[in-house]
Amino acid sequence: MADTPTPAYSVRIRVRMDNEPGMLGKLAIAIGEVGGNISGLRGFEVKSAVLDEDIVVNCNSVAHQEQVRTAIEGIEGVDVVEFEDRTFHMHEGGKIEVLPLAPVRDIEDLSMAYTPGVARVCMEIAKNPEAAHRYTIKRNTVAIVSDGTAVLGLGDIGPEAAMPVMEGKALLFKHFAGVDAFPVCLNTKDPEEIIETVLRLEPTFGGVNLEDIAAPGAFEVEERLDQVMDIPVFHDDQHGTAIVTLAALENALKIVDKRKEDLKVVIAGVGAAGVAVSKILMNAGVVNVIGFDRQGAVHTGRDGLNTSKRWFAENTNPDGETGTLSDSMRGADVFIGLSGPDLITRDDVVSMAKDPVVFAMANPDPEIRPELIGDVAAVIATGRSDFPNQINNVLAFPGVFRGALDAGAKKITENMKVAAAEAIAEVVTPADLSPENIIPSVFDPEVVVAVARASADAARRDGVCR
Amino acid sequence: MADTPTPAYSVRIRVRMDNEPGMLGKLAIAIGEVGGNISGLRGFEVKSAVLDEDIVVNCNSVAHQEQVRTAIEGIEGVDVVEFEDRTFHMHEGGKIEVLPLAPVRDIEDLSMAYTPGVARVCMEIAKNPEAAHRYTIKRNTVAIVSDGTAVLGLGDIGPEAAMPVMEGKALLFKHFAGVDAFPVCLNTKDPEEIIETVLRLEPTFGGVNLEDIAAPGAFEVEERLDQVMDIPVFHDDQHGTAIVTLAALENALKIVDKRKEDLKVVIAGVGAAGVAVSKILMNAGVVNVIGFDRQGAVHTGRDGLNTSKRWFAENTNPDGETGTLSDSMRGADVFIGLSGPDLITRDDVVSMAKDPVVFAMANPDPEIRPELIGDVAAVIATGRSDFPNQINNVLAFPGVFRGALDAGAKKITENMKVAAAEAIAEVVTPADLSPENIIPSVFDPEVVVAVARASADAARRDGVCR
Repeated sequence: MADTPTPAYSVRIRVRMDNEPGMLGKLAIAIGEVGGNISGLRGFEVKSAVLDEDIVVNCNSVAHQEQVRTAIEGIEGVDVVEFEDRTFHMHEGGKIEVLPLAPVRDIEDLSMAYTPGVARVCMEIAKNPEAAHRYTIKRNTVAIVSDGTAVLGLGDIGPEAAMPVMEGKALLFKHFAGVDAFPVCLNTKDPEEIIETVLRLEPTFGGVNLEDIAAPGAFEVEERLDQVMDIPVFHDDQHGTAIVTLAALENALKIVDKRKEDLKVVIAGVGAAGVAVSKILMNAGVVNVIGFDRQGAVHTGRDGLNTSKRWFAENTNPDGETGTLSDSMRGADVFIGLSGPDLITRDDVVSMAKDPVVFAMANPDPEIRPELIGDVAAVIATGRSDFPNQINNVLAFPGVFRGALDAGAKKITENMKVAAAEAIAEVVTPADLSPENIIPSVFDPEVVVAVARASADAARRDGVCR
Repeated sequence: MADTPTPAYSVRIRVRMDNEPGMLGKLAIAIGEVGGNISGLRGFEVKSAVLDEDIVVNCNSVAHQEQVRTAIEGIEGVDVVEFEDRTFHMHEGGKIEVLPLAPVRDIEDLSMAYTPGVARVCMEIAKNPEAAHRYTIKRNTVAIVSDGTAVLGLGDIGPEAAMPVMEGKALLFKHFAGVDAFPVCLNTKDPEEIIETVLRLEPTFGGVNLEDIAAPGAFEVEERLDQVMDIPVFHDDQHGTAIVTLAALENALKIVDKRKEDLKVVIAGVGAAGVAVSKILMNAGVVNVIGFDRQGAVHTGRDGLNTSKRWFAENTNPDGETGTLSDSMRGADVFIGLSGPDLITRDDVVSMAKDPVVFAMANPDPEIRPELIGDVAAVIATGRSDFPNQINNVLAFPGVFRGALDAGAKKITENMKVAAAEAIAEVVTPADLSPENIIPSVFDPEVVVAVARASADAARRDGVCR
């Protein structure tokens, strides 16, 4: 799919053209001929004999950007004045800033926000530690913790290179839910050291969002922190994905008119996300889940399973299937892919039970391209924004933490996750529900409100609030 | 000095008064009679028979706030509708927030700031780690690290209770110098663990400001981090104080017309700040420095000195003085107090050389009250904002880091500190210089510009920039 021009490779090109009729047409044709996608024109400025203009062009690679540049430079009467990669430009200097919430206009302000007044607030917290949740940023601030070992689909690229993702996450937390979040990229891959470091950081934060930490270390980190810490801990790669997947499944089932209890669900990929998705589905009522890794079906008869897969084998695959993925796809109601590109075939989908539900969520390239099964699958979802039904964690984590912080929750419970999923599903009204619209847009402002309320209510019901 | 009403104890009182002439006068008299200081009136709102008004009153303690309340409630025709401690109110929810620098209006923005576009920036940093200083918040972000063991004058109040101070510092960093700073309050007091934790956090930050960590641990933490890290490390309690003290001394010497080389400087308090002040004075040309702790003069003949005091003994006190503080004050040109209240007497100051310079910087109560020596000292400075010549670290740290980050400095060198001090001193023009004006106001906008330039230039001269 690298051939589709995308904003990820868009350029802003400032051109200076002879001020003559038809120049813009020539330019647009030249860009179109090399496959560039003009997504905007702006900054039009006439300077007598010439005129300047900014053109935004989506490309599909860096080489393609250069092709566009060369094509423009080849037009007589057109010069390229500036040529800017918009994605890199947007990242210059980072994507978040830390701003004062209190004024510092004069000595009076200083005397309250800093010395000597601040000492009174410090002493109040020293006397009563719970006051930290009232008088410090702890009330609204989440650490986004990563070691950079499993960043997006890029693998172990290290903590420095993980920073742009964590900053992006912080930006989404604030934009969608008003949660202050701050990246904490750690120079260690040792789960014990990650745990130790996050515990030492507890005084500063009101929540911990673990991100892009490789399995199985990620499980250990999350479990231990969740047990020990007095603030909510959430591994987004596991639970964010799980919540949104369950939300999508709830709505897909309305379309195919099936009940969770009766489903056979095949899951490809038994890493952090696969295990979490399986857990939430079972918590929500699904009985028959069967998972596949590179060695095939996960079942209790297999040797050499790690702790997490051992748990998985013991709690899934009730019929003890031991064959290939294709074997198990036969008669399955739902396929959930959290693995890699082109893992399943059209024939696999054809072999499924009536009205197959296919969530092919591998990023950037799904387990099967949607256009190959458009006529046989009843509902298709992917992880991509350029297909219908994007399973996007952004639907979950901002609202889940908004609710947890608002309720003063000390944990994110299983019930909070299931409630969040149901809230997301319900944002799609019966009138709007269709095979191409089982999940709301991340820009639907109702999502965060609904998720936050559901998450907070469930926290209160579970009695985990301070 | 707890008897002076201060904004640190100010209250906002919303009163409802009978709408009759003279009511406000009665109110003001009642507040004045119990010693409250009305610093503002606002929010005037007439509601036919009554009128509401906000009155801001500075008090000197919580008990005093209650006295004011009782006095107001005692007036016939006046009700207290709201009564709010302004310092606590300002701290509600913390004093900083994390805001997006990139827009998230639509899928196109998301595709650049987050997946899939962000992966390109991640890969660029993975390939070339230095790019982190360009494309992440590292370029402009400083960690404010504390373990809460020596917070203001409050001592070891713990990391949670230290948070309001670190948030206040972050607020000042942004307000005065546009530096993004974030509190990192650590749940450990072990210097080794603090060092280890900060090293693990290095991928996230572009600088480290250590704060309110007790000596001698603080020395070890700073030295080791400074050696090992590839970003500037600065212990504000040491070096911030040292820079501003040197700045004040430079200008005081212009007034008393003495040369650094000829001075005898007595320093009371040989903790983190005392040692750093001594070092910067010697780096700037002072030869005769003598320090005192609770045991008396620090000299090489004393037993049981820790590493830092051993160094101090070997590098100061050239005349080998071994007597009391009062003994050494005799004939001294400069007294610098970084210890506790009421340590020296008027007689001590009288015994000093001609035109004594006295910096009594203990907080909140100085080593000697300025009014006791106004007629004998040539120049007096304190750490307080309610006397002339406040030695305030806010003059130094924002500009020092601004300069270091702008220059891409990997260290804060001794030359950078001395240059920063000189820059602060020079902001006071010869025309403005007077015994009551040796140091600029923290609100003088020239300060940060001058300090940042001096710090950046010195970094470049020292060849410590990337």
